[in-house]
Amino acid sequence: MSEAQIASLDQIDLFASLTPEERATIVRQCRWRRYKEDEQIIDHLSDTRDACLVVEGRVRVVMFSMSGREISFDDVSAGGYMGELSALDGGRRSATVIALTDTLIAFVPPRLFQEIVTTHPRVALIVMQRMAAVIRNATGRIMDLSTLGANNRVHAEIVRLAKPGLRPDNTAEITPIPVHGDIASRVSTTRETVARVLSDLARSGLVERRGHTLVVKDYTRLVDMVEEVRGE
Amino acid sequence: MSEAQIASLDQIDLFASLTPEERATIVRQCRWRRYKEDEQIIDHLSDTRDACLVVEGRVRVVMFSMSGREISFDDVSAGGYMGELSALDGGRRSATVIALTDTLIAFVPPRLFQEIVTTHPRVALIVMQRMAAVIRNATGRIMDLSTLGANNRVHAEIVRLAKPGLRPDNTAEITPIPVHGDIASRVSTTRETVARVLSDLARSGLVERRGHTLVVKDYTRLVDMVEEVRGE
Repeated sequence: MSEAQIASLDQIDLFASLTPEERATIVRQCRWRRYKEDEQIIDHLSDTRDACLVVEGRVRVVMFSMSGREISFDDVSAGGYMGELSALDGGRRSATVIALTDTLIAFVPPRLFQEIVTTHPRVALIVMQRMAAVIRNATGRIMDLSTLGANNRVHAEIVRLAKPGLRPDNTAEITPIPVHGDIASRVSTTRETVARVLSDLARSGLVERRGHTLVVKDYTRLVDMVEEVRGE
Repeated sequence: MSEAQIASLDQIDLFASLTPEERATIVRQCRWRRYKEDEQIIDHLSDTRDACLVVEGRVRVVMFSMSGREISFDDVSAGGYMGELSALDGGRRSATVIALTDTLIAFVPPRLFQEIVTTHPRVALIVMQRMAAVIRNATGRIMDLSTLGANNRVHAEIVRLAKPGLRPDNTAEITPIPVHGDIASRVSTTRETVARVLSDLARSGLVERRGHTLVVKDYTRLVDMVEEVRGE
């Protein structure tokens, strides 16, 4: 166990409430491994049950359809964690996890993860609140898949991406321009549909490419297009 | 607070690890209310944040699309609970809850619910494991909505309903015959589609109505029809 490894767990939000000594004890029981970009970290068929701390890099949680289409569930950056479902309930992996960049993972054995959440209520509460966020997100996605067409799901995803960059003049910037395949896998459609919807939006003046930025020129109108169909 | 109320919390699985005294303390801080069949218990627009213990009866967690179509998420029977997301994260309600039968609910204020899960690790672990089950279920549903057509989603739901009644001769009985509207709201389609798929299955000899029972006559074949498309 290196000093660097102990220090690196300081960046894991989940363990912010633990003492340095408690973190050091955890570090000692973790298995560490580096992954290259695009390398698979968890296979959904694997029988491992560890929770995984993302110490460096960024990972994507996905499933693949029979035709090979990627359905993405979440991206987790350094400081976050994933794989907690199997660590908590002992059940099989619910998804595949792939490194989006070079990544360093600390694997927490399931018994240790359960011990941590049962002896540190603050940690347990964070785990529960994050699971609540995952459930809320999944509920919204099930509603969108059940009630919106693919076009409107692409609109809804652009609204979601634009929201953090919204400005008082009702425009919003998304930088860098999102990759069509990423949008497609988040809203369960094809790249071709994403490309077509984006060029329709550009033609009607609602979005515009400027260098590496996608500018949403009338955020409220785009929100309305989604909510009219959602019924919100 | 009546003896009956204290006793009734004994039936709540979540609190099985607590002492009778601890349960009595909780009972004292709950708000109790009875609901008639079809009455709304939680409005998804409500600003309440209580966790809800189902002491008697049975409830359904649903959302409605703009056109009024019901998308159902979960049924919770006596002994179970719901509404924990808002109690844990203080966020707004993610769904509407309706009484399926006459129902008695004990409302646990959010501060009390958080206190319970942070002082009783066994309770926290059960909450986390149940949330894990909800996430697994939602992930499967998102995959089915993303990759299966409505017909196959109806097939998948019949497989799910038939599984507990599977017999060694590869037949399975579902009693009572499921209501078309219930299947429709679980797999996000219309009653008409469910009726059509069931009559197609009956015509091809895969299912048969016998009184109040739906008999699946070739369970393996039905499973294959789903898995061929899912790619499992």
